[in-house]
Amino acid sequence: MRLIIAVLGLFAVFGLGECGNILVWPTRGSHWINLKIILEKLIDRGHDVTVLVPNPSSFMDTKESDRFSYQHFSVSMNAQDMHDFLKELVRFSAYESDQLNFLQYQIKFYELAFKHQDMAFSYCDGIIKSPELMDKLRNGTFDIVLSDPHFQCSDIVAEELNVPLVYTFHVTNTYIVEQKCGQMPSPPSFIPGAMTKLTDKMSFRERIKNILFYCTQDVFSIVMWKRMDNYYTEYFGRPTSYCEMMGKADIWLIRTYWDFEFPRPFLPNIKYVGGLHCTPAKPLPKDMEEFVQSSGDDGIVVFSLGSMIDKLPKETSNMIASALARIPQKVLWQYGGEKPDTLGENTRIYKWIPQNDLLGHPKTRAFITHGGINGIYEAIYHGIPMVGIPLCADQPDNLVHMKARGAAVVIDNIKTMQPQDLLDGVNAIINDPSYKENAMRLSRIHHDRPIKPLDEAVFWIEFVMRNKGAKHLRVEAHNLTWYQYHCLDVFAFLITILTVVIYVVFKMCKFFIMHCCFRSNRKSKKE
Amino acid sequence: MRLIIAVLGLFAVFGLGECGNILVWPTRGSHWINLKIILEKLIDRGHDVTVLVPNPSSFMDTKESDRFSYQHFSVSMNAQDMHDFLKELVRFSAYESDQLNFLQYQIKFYELAFKHQDMAFSYCDGIIKSPELMDKLRNGTFDIVLSDPHFQCSDIVAEELNVPLVYTFHVTNTYIVEQKCGQMPSPPSFIPGAMTKLTDKMSFRERIKNILFYCTQDVFSIVMWKRMDNYYTEYFGRPTSYCEMMGKADIWLIRTYWDFEFPRPFLPNIKYVGGLHCTPAKPLPKDMEEFVQSSGDDGIVVFSLGSMIDKLPKETSNMIASALARIPQKVLWQYGGEKPDTLGENTRIYKWIPQNDLLGHPKTRAFITHGGINGIYEAIYHGIPMVGIPLCADQPDNLVHMKARGAAVVIDNIKTMQPQDLLDGVNAIINDPSYKENAMRLSRIHHDRPIKPLDEAVFWIEFVMRNKGAKHLRVEAHNLTWYQYHCLDVFAFLITILTVVIYVVFKMCKFFIMHCCFRSNRKSKKE
Repeated sequence: MRLIIAVLGLFAVFGLGECGNILVWPTRGSHWINLKIILEKLIDRGHDVTVLVPNPSSFMDTKESDRFSYQHFSVSMNAQDMHDFLKELVRFSAYESDQLNFLQYQIKFYELAFKHQDMAFSYCDGIIKSPELMDKLRNGTFDIVLSDPHFQCSDIVAEELNVPLVYTFHVTNTYIVEQKCGQMPSPPSFIPGAMTKLTDKMSFRERIKNILFYCTQDVFSIVMWKRMDNYYTEYFGRPTSYCEMMGKADIWLIRTYWDFEFPRPFLPNIKYVGGLHCTPAKPLPKDMEEFVQSSGDDGIVVFSLGSMIDKLPKETSNMIASALARIPQKVLWQYGGEKPDTLGENTRIYKWIPQNDLLGHPKTRAFITHGGINGIYEAIYHGIPMVGIPLCADQPDNLVHMKARGAAVVIDNIKTMQPQDLLDGVNAIINDPSYKENAMRLSRIHHDRPIKPLDEAVFWIEFVMRNKGAKHLRVEAHNLTWYQYHCLDVFAFLITILTVVIYVVFKMCKFFIMHCCFRSNRKSKKE
Repeated sequence: MRLIIAVLGLFAVFGLGECGNILVWPTRGSHWINLKIILEKLIDRGHDVTVLVPNPSSFMDTKESDRFSYQHFSVSMNAQDMHDFLKELVRFSAYESDQLNFLQYQIKFYELAFKHQDMAFSYCDGIIKSPELMDKLRNGTFDIVLSDPHFQCSDIVAEELNVPLVYTFHVTNTYIVEQKCGQMPSPPSFIPGAMTKLTDKMSFRERIKNILFYCTQDVFSIVMWKRMDNYYTEYFGRPTSYCEMMGKADIWLIRTYWDFEFPRPFLPNIKYVGGLHCTPAKPLPKDMEEFVQSSGDDGIVVFSLGSMIDKLPKETSNMIASALARIPQKVLWQYGGEKPDTLGENTRIYKWIPQNDLLGHPKTRAFITHGGINGIYEAIYHGIPMVGIPLCADQPDNLVHMKARGAAVVIDNIKTMQPQDLLDGVNAIINDPSYKENAMRLSRIHHDRPIKPLDEAVFWIEFVMRNKGAKHLRVEAHNLTWYQYHCLDVFAFLITILTVVIYVVFKMCKFFIMHCCFRSNRKSKKE
């Protein structure tokens, strides 16, 4: 009965229009996990979904679902190259970065950024420079391109196919993309830049740091986007800006919400659909359930550093294991490495854990996480406080968001982490009730919204298909130059007018005063 | 069956929490029409609603509904004063304003603004300065104050009762309130000021006009709010800013949507719920239906200048009637004045018309309107193109929005309007299919949203009651001073540092050059 009501409710809310034909831009890893949930739902609602997949790739789990159509394309790099890149990124962020001086850090950072951009170029080449593939796509009568713009060029294909484009972003607050390409106002006084580990409440010193970071981002965007602009310009044979092309997207689906984001100005075509992959917990496998139940009143701790980390240095894994051995809770640890020597009897290692089902289990007391956005959202959904051990990319910042809301303790550096740090963190979030209360408050905010995030994401994708775009939500700022946006031309004009007026008035006053003085002088001389 | 599904769907979407106790701030006229719809829905959902009503008042139609509780308060002015004020406002805007020079216009404008503020003060006095009433309210165990802040001081009562506050705004784009008190970014390059009759697409000259208008609004806000600040400060006995108090509201329900508004940046606690009063058309009274059907294929034109205008100067009404007599459509005209001598056989005058039911009638071809937001929304809902004859307040601007979207022809000045202008306008929107197409496009945008506007308004009011506020949606900008918001202190600091560094480097260079020169001079002298 509940299912029937849910289905009828869905039809009542959305209506069932014609079914569409959706082209999906390639993505990878956790980006793909989220995207796949949306695609499954779109297929449930009768749409056809075609996914562009690099050939070969282990990153999009093409074997997992035969519900999508796949369109393969060739890339010059293979899955191992991507894997190696991610390893290098984690090594740099978690282990090497604090040994480098400012210049070394910047050089390495740009080196990695260029590598990532080269991968994007190889994806672009594989698709838009393949006449056969592009012909196939043109003949595919697609209604929309759906893209996680982690890899660029989906805007080129949308333009070539003359269909609307919807972005689905993994996480926002990157400043440059949302502000410069999306036209989202981002006052640096309360919008912290990504990677700064700042919150919306900044001291004077922190605001200095934020503004200087914005400046480095400006430099970064100039350097990185110059290459993209050249690529786009070469493809179209006319001057084309990558950022302007991005700005043409009809809807930006941001996969966060106000349970996570610091409140900020945003735009009508930007929709916050965070947590769309979250679902109620399903029953655990029998042996796992038995282990969980054996924890008694102490409950369990769920521990995962995500899919990117399958092995840790031996001393790190030993240190973690020894800390976990000292807590009364049972621990379920997702880890692909060698069994640590110090592993306690309360801890079990699994190659893979059903993370969402464990986080939704009534016995779960805490979640030790690297701070990936998907895991954080599962913890928010189930109201579980966190201990964060961030590794790279958006993870440190994600955890700062949770810490600022009192739902997490964060250990800044896995390399210098001591067993006591981890122990203190876990004990704090389990024994200090404020962490659980705050996690439950976030959970309430997450659930108490007018429309479920997955339904909202699907609604806007279907809206764009039904209405051939959503131009009525696109701010006019996209059509202004930077100086027009800030009205610098108007100010220059008004200041010029004012200066001329003041000058003329001054000259006239001077003339009249001189004239009067001259006359009175002449008079007195005559007299 | 459909009703059951709808009701079940509603419960599924919102859930039924505890029922709340809602205190409603007094308002008037068309503001009250919208607010009442929300209140009726809240009562349907089991909440108690108490409305503060000035004693006596004909503006809130207290006789119409016995579903609300009423709490009367005394005001020093009566309904006639209010009526006279509105008449004066219309006379000034529609008839007198173009005869005045800039200075005379400003003097009259401020005179009217002060009069309106005095009315608001008399409402404030009647409520917050009545110890008996305030005691009653304190004992009323209210969960929320709901207010159309057309009349101020609801924030004082919310603070006194220690309950959250939800605003429901009639229409936005007033610039000063939304930007200064709500912290909504409003770049003047594409956010036209209210009353400017500008759109989001502005030429260089129009942007100059807009910026100069923003400046006049700044002056206006300084003058008007100074009086409010004094009133608030006197009441609380501590320095209190009216604008800061407004900024404490948890949710701002704006009664427009992107079918009407130019797309613009907004904030998480600002919800666009425009058109919440719109409903499908009900059957017309029998004689009216017969008259409508007698129009045949030509259809009908619906004509109303709103409830504020019941009489027009005789020459104006005659001129309008003579123009309408020349169209093939039948006309239904809501008019309380004397029957014009030139009234055509195709035109019938009614003291009151069921406007929404007429606009939703399949025979309706056009709507002649003064541009009140409620009427415009009914036309959007039913996809009817408009001829606008704006009179005062937000009406000229409302119609500019419809004209910019190609769904209306606007006659700028009722005083100088000629029969041919009205005739041309009506013929254009009926015979040029683009107007109907654009009106239908707006209608599609209006209907095609993830949640109905009334449901969304009710959801957020209930959210605030359930969660004792919505502080997680309130931007940190509220807690910054103007110079912190714009980071002027940071820029001043950085420029100072930069200047000192440049100065020191310059001095050092000079010293070394001098030193070298001095040494080489000494050497050469020695030689």
